[in-house]
Amino acid sequence: MLDIQGSTITRSHAIQNVGVSGLDYPLTVDLGDDVFRTAAKWTLGVSLPADQRGAHMSRFVETVDSLGDSPLSLAGMVAFAGRVRETLEAKSASCETRFTWFRRVYAPVSRKSALNPYTVTWHVESFEDGNSLVVVTVEALVKSLCPCSKAISDRGAHNQRSRITISLRGSGQSVATMPSLDRTIAMVESHASSPVYPVLKRADEKFVTEYAYDNPGFVEDLVRAVAGSLGDFPGVEAFRVHVRNEESIHAHDCFAEIRSEKWQ
Amino acid sequence: MLDIQGSTITRSHAIQNVGVSGLDYPLTVDLGDDVFRTAAKWTLGVSLPADQRGAHMSRFVETVDSLGDSPLSLAGMVAFAGRVRETLEAKSASCETRFTWFRRVYAPVSRKSALNPYTVTWHVESFEDGNSLVVVTVEALVKSLCPCSKAISDRGAHNQRSRITISLRGSGQSVATMPSLDRTIAMVESHASSPVYPVLKRADEKFVTEYAYDNPGFVEDLVRAVAGSLGDFPGVEAFRVHVRNEESIHAHDCFAEIRSEKWQ
Amino acid sequence: MLDIQGSTITRSHAIQNVGVSGLDYPLTVDLGDDVFRTAAKWTLGVSLPADQRGAHMSRFVETVDSLGDSPLSLAGMVAFAGRVRETLEAKSASCETRFTWFRRVYAPVSRKSALNPYTVTWHVESFEDGNSLVVVTVEALVKSLCPCSKAISDRGAHNQRSRITISLRGSGQSVATMPSLDRTIAMVESHASSPVYPVLKRADEKFVTEYAYDNPGFVEDLVRAVAGSLGDFPGVEAFRVHVRNEESIHAHDCFAEIRSEKWQ
Amino acid sequence: MLDIQGSTITRSHAIQNVGVSGLDYPLTVDLGDDVFRTAAKWTLGVSLPADQRGAHMSRFVETVDSLGDSPLSLAGMVAFAGRVRETLEAKSASCETRFTWFRRVYAPVSRKSALNPYTVTWHVESFEDGNSLVVVTVEALVKSLCPCSKAISDRGAHNQRSRITISLRGSGQSVATMPSLDRTIAMVESHASSPVYPVLKRADEKFVTEYAYDNPGFVEDLVRAVAGSLGDFPGVEAFRVHVRNEESIHAHDCFAEIRSEKWQ
Repeated sequence: MLDIQGSTITRSHAIQNVGVSGLDYPLTVDLGDDVFRTAAKWTLGVSLPADQRGAHMSRFVETVDSLGDSPLSLAGMVAFAGRVRETLEAKSASCETRFTWFRRVYAPVSRKSALNPYTVTWHVESFEDGNSLVVVTVEALVKSLCPCSKAISDRGAHNQRSRITISLRGSGQSVATMPSLDRTIAMVESHASSPVYPVLKRADEKFVTEYAYDNPGFVEDLVRAVAGSLGDFPGVEAFRVHVRNEESIHAHDCFAEIRSEKWQ
Repeated sequence: MLDIQGSTITRSHAIQNVGVSGLDYPLTVDLGDDVFRTAAKWTLGVSLPADQRGAHMSRFVETVDSLGDSPLSLAGMVAFAGRVRETLEAKSASCETRFTWFRRVYAPVSRKSALNPYTVTWHVESFEDGNSLVVVTVEALVKSLCPCSKAISDRGAHNQRSRITISLRGSGQSVATMPSLDRTIAMVESHASSPVYPVLKRADEKFVTEYAYDNPGFVEDLVRAVAGSLGDFPGVEAFRVHVRNEESIHAHDCFAEIRSEKWQ
Repeated sequence: MLDIQGSTITRSHAIQNVGVSGLDYPLTVDLGDDVFRTAAKWTLGVSLPADQRGAHMSRFVETVDSLGDSPLSLAGMVAFAGRVRETLEAKSASCETRFTWFRRVYAPVSRKSALNPYTVTWHVESFEDGNSLVVVTVEALVKSLCPCSKAISDRGAHNQRSRITISLRGSGQSVATMPSLDRTIAMVESHASSPVYPVLKRADEKFVTEYAYDNPGFVEDLVRAVAGSLGDFPGVEAFRVHVRNEESIHAHDCFAEIRSEKWQ
Repeated sequence: MLDIQGSTITRSHAIQNVGVSGLDYPLTVDLGDDVFRTAAKWTLGVSLPADQRGAHMSRFVETVDSLGDSPLSLAGMVAFAGRVRETLEAKSASCETRFTWFRRVYAPVSRKSALNPYTVTWHVESFEDGNSLVVVTVEALVKSLCPCSKAISDRGAHNQRSRITISLRGSGQSVATMPSLDRTIAMVESHASSPVYPVLKRADEKFVTEYAYDNPGFVEDLVRAVAGSLGDFPGVEAFRVHVRNEESIHAHDCFAEIRSEKWQ
């Protein structure tokens, strides 16, 4: 049968990235101290030289399927991207998987606990020379309380959900030293007006309300504090921090973003 | 050329609703005191008897296109649904258009103003006997402040964006007496801890902060207050109110919903 | 400390449904022949009488958390909704969980296999008298090929992704006899122009292309065929079938919907 | 009253971009030969030096509101971004507006016509030295038919919706010479297996079916053809083309992307 994808063509463009996206697949995530099975969303692609007509798309799905139940760590994801590159016979591969990570969070007074969700993305680009580029992105919610509102008002202060997205870039070599998700989230929460909690009893709610009132911060303050802490993290070659406040006094959001010098 | 859609079939199911969805089309909306051009999202369908194989799908789009630049009021939408029913030679038609309505909102102290967005849906079902069922849905944002947090805390109170969705059901006959969007929104805002505003200067922010602190309300309080007011509105045969608080202390939302007795 | 939620109020509306939504939580799903851990999205609510001010929101999350790693079957979900009702001291509870189910699908010729995703929702309403209403919804993709296009064209026929959403209503008593997800999906695929596949090699692609060409069907044909088969399924008291064709010749979709007589 | 945002701070990070996002606002778009009122979605930000605590968020909304009913062209958008930069007293500003553009499309045989939607984004970065960076992004749907499926099958060929996103980068100086949306879309459609149409009668459907069958193309072919044509367009300094096929034989998509050399 004809192999049209494999045929050669002339006078064309190289394609930086071609593959499959929107691929839902179960995954066993290995975070070291937390190994769990979940549903992930994948994007997988490779570079295609100017003289090759098409990528063999079915191999992407087969490679994901071959993971089976085996736990995949971030280091394993680097190896996986290399395997995709080889399986597709390409010079570079770009693999991304996105999943929800749950972390047990304890209420500050009652110590009642349940799970908070965080969206995590592992993005790995694997190159012919064996090097890799790794970007870990985590999205977390926290509470922010407006310093201006507090300062000028006789009582109360408006506050809201803030959505923080942190991307940390490392390499295949630095994966072992990159900060854990847990450490990254804990750092973010330490700079917010307050963490968000899955379960709060009344004594907790009093604590959270007063704690947030005592720790106001603009969207600018939060993005700067997080960026400041990231500068001290090992294994991070570059980073991007984006904070979006879902303002309770407006129908629109406010945001602030800092990218480290080496980002992009 | 064969007319396969128009062919008759035997021993089959009647189809309650068949048509086109996800149809983006420009629309001139006529709200009486506000006429504006915008981009709307349409869903249009008809009933199909058991012995007819298919609907003539292209007629839906042609009927929407025939509106051209002509302003469409809610009464016009009722007539439009009737035209769809006739054009498709059907016993009933179900037509829905969704658009964003903008309303000028003034800051409480500085009186600076700009526009707030509201998502509006007009849904009309048109029947063979000339009757129609009309459902107007409007989605608005307000601010809510937690009474419990205020009562138990020495300072501050958590607050957040609340998303209110109100659906009002009337008929082709009652369209003229149904409450205006402006009146509906104003009523909703009067029950919230505070409206949201597009522009707030410092003096306004102080006002809004203190006003919200002085007007706390649970998601349950807000849904009940709005439902109570809707009971007094003319032209409303049935209603549904849904309030969703995007909690600033949790990663999940809290919601409350009231449906009037006649709302199925 | 004040219990404001528990306080009584006078002259108010009963609330049909109040609770938490958008709650992400891990879940071990038990489908009988397939037990798997995944991330689910929950909505949980209860009815609130006119004289009670608020629901105790934190109990919803605690009840979900108490599931831990225990497998939850549909029968277990019925029991779970009852537990929510009791824990919240309510007359009725409404609990919903949504997750992605994966099913191994084999290519028709090469027999290469991988997993297809299906979105599944379990919705249970639990009442004071011990009765329950159960709605299982499953969303699947198939391929549809237009009979009109085939009949009038000298070569080819336009085809596209169709998105089928089936909701099956039963009761706490009928849960055991409701059709399995696997049987439901297999039935849907048997009526489509073709299933979709995660992995297709060239011989498979030839088979799928020709098979679809030989089995054309309008969106109306597909919704009717599925509705016809559902009528024969045991344990189904009422159903709703919605098919949406993401037309490859239009920017909009075509849809058709059938609701059984007892589906409100 | 305190001006907390305007206060100075020490030892901090500069912020590359801070402002408002998710801002819905009406806009009169001026495309030269097509001027229309619609609802747009805005993101507006500025850079903030390390020693300034906050941006004056309300000025963003006021600047958008000041546009009123005046038509905004792409050149006007460049001037607008400069005004935002000056109003916020910043070294650089980044402004983005997104809207749906409608274009009348005629069926190939019957010449029946209606409107197709395209999502357009104008992104402008304005710098202190008076220079600007302009990126126009347009998203369009077309039909693609698989060459492999056609070649290996005795009858038929699978085809689907393809979603093409083209970003063209220019500068404040090159705005006048950048290709029109109409020309860009027409070029894209010329490379697709077929355009999509809002209204097709039976003779048109036959034409479209056969035309697509006679013009097969992989996702790789389409992205290359579009990239090839963009290289000849004046006023385009860099570009990115992304094509995503919503495969009718899979539950996942296939994509291909080409970025010109100067695209970062």
